[in-house]
Amino acid sequence: MTAETSREELVLERIERARRRRPRVREERVTLAHGAGGKATQTLVEALFVEAFRNPALETLDDGAVLPPAAGRLVFTTDAHVVSPLFFPGGDIGELAVNGTVNDLAVCGARPLYLSAGFVLEEGFPVDDLRRIVRSMADAAARADVSVVTGDTKVVERGKADGCFITTSGIGVLDGAGARAELGASAVRPGDAVLVSGPIGDHGVTVMLARGELDLEADVMSDTAALHGLTAALLDAVPGGVRMMRDATRGGVATVLNEIAGASGCGVVLDEAAVPVRPAVAGACELLGIEPLYVACEGRFVAVVDGARADAALRALRGHPLGAGAAIAGTVRDDPPGLVLLRTAFGGTRIVDTLVGDPLPRIC
Amino acid sequence: MTAETSREELVLERIERARRRRPRVREERVTLAHGAGGKATQTLVEALFVEAFRNPALETLDDGAVLPPAAGRLVFTTDAHVVSPLFFPGGDIGELAVNGTVNDLAVCGARPLYLSAGFVLEEGFPVDDLRRIVRSMADAAARADVSVVTGDTKVVERGKADGCFITTSGIGVLDGAGARAELGASAVRPGDAVLVSGPIGDHGVTVMLARGELDLEADVMSDTAALHGLTAALLDAVPGGVRMMRDATRGGVATVLNEIAGASGCGVVLDEAAVPVRPAVAGACELLGIEPLYVACEGRFVAVVDGARADAALRALRGHPLGAGAAIAGTVRDDPPGLVLLRTAFGGTRIVDTLVGDPLPRIC
Repeated sequence: MTAETSREELVLERIERARRRRPRVREERVTLAHGAGGKATQTLVEALFVEAFRNPALETLDDGAVLPPAAGRLVFTTDAHVVSPLFFPGGDIGELAVNGTVNDLAVCGARPLYLSAGFVLEEGFPVDDLRRIVRSMADAAARADVSVVTGDTKVVERGKADGCFITTSGIGVLDGAGARAELGASAVRPGDAVLVSGPIGDHGVTVMLARGELDLEADVMSDTAALHGLTAALLDAVPGGVRMMRDATRGGVATVLNEIAGASGCGVVLDEAAVPVRPAVAGACELLGIEPLYVACEGRFVAVVDGARADAALRALRGHPLGAGAAIAGTVRDDPPGLVLLRTAFGGTRIVDTLVGDPLPRIC
Repeated sequence: MTAETSREELVLERIERARRRRPRVREERVTLAHGAGGKATQTLVEALFVEAFRNPALETLDDGAVLPPAAGRLVFTTDAHVVSPLFFPGGDIGELAVNGTVNDLAVCGARPLYLSAGFVLEEGFPVDDLRRIVRSMADAAARADVSVVTGDTKVVERGKADGCFITTSGIGVLDGAGARAELGASAVRPGDAVLVSGPIGDHGVTVMLARGELDLEADVMSDTAALHGLTAALLDAVPGGVRMMRDATRGGVATVLNEIAGASGCGVVLDEAAVPVRPAVAGACELLGIEPLYVACEGRFVAVVDGARADAALRALRGHPLGAGAAIAGTVRDDPPGLVLLRTAFGGTRIVDTLVGDPLPRIC
């Protein structure tokens, strides 16, 4: 045994011993020291983050995560999450942060691979809440088959943030059917069909009600979910037939459709009766004075597909547990260029504009 | 000309026209609507972000940026920035956010390629300040030869954040000398030399003084800079001789050295007289009662190199404008395992521990 080897073994043994020691955060609340880069930060990172997210790239605790080369074009995305409250029926900010970034990759046709997580914490934030959020992120990441490989934590003084903000970024790779799809709103053309992957507005209504500012109860929970399996199923079922996909988060389905109409120069005609909305959500929206079409979903997407293959697309969506409530909700027309029209249940037609103002702040 | 082509031209013309229209943010202050995903968000994104960062991947305004395949292993990193104040001598949060992420990639041996930017804004934040920050990010990105390809903006109510937080993530590729270097603290061994790339503590002291809480003035400014050129120069000059690099941000040089000692199981012996500190910084630190070794830099890194090639490494650093003040500041020893020792100017020796507590909150 050379001196070199014995030293190497010594180091490995020390690392192993440190790992077995299992650092613990003893404080009940986050302090400024947890964000200062010293011992407290180190303990927080090791006890909470590494413990929950465990993977070789993260465990080196280097400034960046070194990842194997990806065979294909990359997709890169980021989302800041400031949802209030942090915990709500059906999910929490952690699950939302993971699913939101996974979904941004998925609707670009990518297979999600890696996530980063940047935390901004308010001094005094309960460590137990943070632990719960981090575990929920880890569970969501495991379900979505992605690794949280790098992160950062900052702490600001009491009153300078609102508990916990999480910014996640994601890297995916365009392989399989996604690589050939060439998705984009500019690919949309007259004759295409507009599909939504399930009932809309659940997430937004749930968060609004969870704030408790309204004397209203409804049996509804967030639809937050990772959609990469569903998008892949759609791309596989109608190769070359999917024009674009977009998850309907802030601004809801109406905003997505306006972006499509604007970017393609086409008209989108939506059939109100065909847009799936749960009765509880429709009822809450009526009382809140908002339209379900503008309410954020966190586990639904809009897809525009070749009109001739709309039925195959719908079958593919409905064949997946997350797409069981999918529907063909509208069609793309020549006219009116750049606008979204809604054919109402009463046979009338009106323009659905992009959301103006802010009926639903901090929904994600 | 087919109907298809004429439609395509029509779309392109519309996009071109929209581009010429140059959207403008008319509000003087950020409102909740700017984060709601509707028209105001769209205008903010187009008028400020797309305008400043212009690049094809960003301009599609899709959920994610599609990027060409990278030839090599990837490095992925993220940083949350909460520096206070947002503007300080020598830089601002925008420049810091870009340089910080570029540097995390650079010290991993990567060539920085792409950045994402996630903003959390406080309602009422001056739009002019945001514009200034975004322009500063764009300038820093141009200098560092990286593109900001994707982003997100959220707005929280007044009093729920502190003006502006920015989380940047970055993707780099390991090519050139960086691909062969296999950097990491576990590669450090006795006999190696410890280099610092320039005078330490400028950034931290500048930010502390800029807060105006101390009745103290000093002629010092932030060292914020993108270090990828300097790290590449070092890797090229001593191929195979660089063990690891780490930028000395939060927790300063002392924290980096403790991480090295801990991960390698070696002792690091630092020569106090050889650590470059500007007189103004040393003076301010004395008055503030903190040690320069713990003060954050944003444009300096620590490198551990093969002791036999320390002089070549030093020449390489000093030959670059950002490394003109570089120095060999210490050596790696067998003993004391896992500890950092400082040989003081008076000939004594004492242990330099990881930072405990938080003398310098919100420094980056």
